[in-house]
Amino acid sequence: MCQETSSLQPVYVLVAPQMGENIGAVARAMLNCGLTRLRLVDPRDGWPNARAHAMSAGALDTMPPVAVFPDISSAIADCQIVYATAAGTRDMVKPVIDARQAGVQIKDQVKNGLQVAVLFGRERSGLTNEELAFAHEHVSIPLNPDFDSLNLGQAALLMAYEFYLAGENGRRCFPTGTSETASMSDFNGLCDRLEREIENGGFFRSPDMRDTMMRNIRNFLIRGMPTEQELRTFHGVITALKRSASGEVDRE
Amino acid sequence: MCQETSSLQPVYVLVAPQMGENIGAVARAMLNCGLTRLRLVDPRDGWPNARAHAMSAGALDTMPPVAVFPDISSAIADCQIVYATAAGTRDMVKPVIDARQAGVQIKDQVKNGLQVAVLFGRERSGLTNEELAFAHEHVSIPLNPDFDSLNLGQAALLMAYEFYLAGENGRRCFPTGTSETASMSDFNGLCDRLEREIENGGFFRSPDMRDTMMRNIRNFLIRGMPTEQELRTFHGVITALKRSASGEVDRE
Repeated sequence: MCQETSSLQPVYVLVAPQMGENIGAVARAMLNCGLTRLRLVDPRDGWPNARAHAMSAGALDTMPPVAVFPDISSAIADCQIVYATAAGTRDMVKPVIDARQAGVQIKDQVKNGLQVAVLFGRERSGLTNEELAFAHEHVSIPLNPDFDSLNLGQAALLMAYEFYLAGENGRRCFPTGTSETASMSDFNGLCDRLEREIENGGFFRSPDMRDTMMRNIRNFLIRGMPTEQELRTFHGVITALKRSASGEVDRE
Repeated sequence: MCQETSSLQPVYVLVAPQMGENIGAVARAMLNCGLTRLRLVDPRDGWPNARAHAMSAGALDTMPPVAVFPDISSAIADCQIVYATAAGTRDMVKPVIDARQAGVQIKDQVKNGLQVAVLFGRERSGLTNEELAFAHEHVSIPLNPDFDSLNLGQAALLMAYEFYLAGENGRRCFPTGTSETASMSDFNGLCDRLEREIENGGFFRSPDMRDTMMRNIRNFLIRGMPTEQELRTFHGVITALKRSASGEVDRE
């Protein structure tokens, strides 16, 4: 079985990669998404490779050692499910799925203890049909059909990102720092003061429009979901605007 | 409005990019996902840039010319909704969403005719808090928290990929009635006026605090995503507040 530390993740297998820079970019993208199991099949410039290390932004120093194999067969010998990434379609009877579906399936499979490998082809020419035949499923990343060539690091990033996010729903949070979201009574206090002040300033030309105008102003202000600190700032802004015209500025 | 050919897509804005290679990688990633509107703010090595062209794998020859601007404000002046990509969280009250949700929202917004910009920060240091304050929403790409630095091309790829794949689900509707969402140049005009007026009113007790205070005020106001009508109302509110103290009320 696999010797790498954590097996709750797939193994990425680069088949005959040419440029060290690309191997480093793959390592960086993998670690960005929490993956640390990288294997190489017959890398053109041997291994280790200084350019790969430089391009990995420290990832190769953090990950377990990269394993090197002479052929695909030995690189995936201990794995149970194999995915192959390849652009477009091939004249081959094999399920084709997209990267998002692959992410979900792979996450399920590794959670169930299966050893999963993902094959990435050489720069420019990708995987041959013979190499693709080693895989259970063909992963095609959906892209602009008129310009769909991804480099190796980009392909690995999209696959790793989809694995990382699989099972997660969209997240939205709303940090308010050290201040709390204001209470409605404080918010209403601001609106009440604003209404008095702008009435003094002759804002409501017609009494009929008053309710509508105030509703619109209130509606705009509440959309920002102000914090307590922001309400205090807004009170200060009102005070300063009044002083701006009155000449009462107190320059301490 | 925007001059680029298709406006049914967001504009990507690179803020102070340093290496031409990264600009080229962004262009390639954009075109991989069908995007062609790229703008640069103050690129370190000027523009055009031979390294960018080489790295773009032909993308820059296919896309309309890249537009260059001296500052963020002018780069997004014709846009209505601004997203900022930035790692981690900041001490700023602003909605934080992930790249997938951003893809869905942006797809909906451009389909509804809104001009959307996505800001990407400079290599290594990203966007400053002042720059982030120009945005309605902060996009944080979920990654391994122990190793989350993406290069510019990778960040653009993930954002563009999520836009490309975003389906019709998770629609977030934002009706604005008969008024359009305000342009950023009109929004910035309001902020500039407000800053002048409250300065006259002695709002900034300490010059050191000026930038922080204005950033907080701008950040609060932009969260409401004001319409053109609401900006006009707000200008009227400022005028009325000044009259409120000056006694110049014209009671017709």
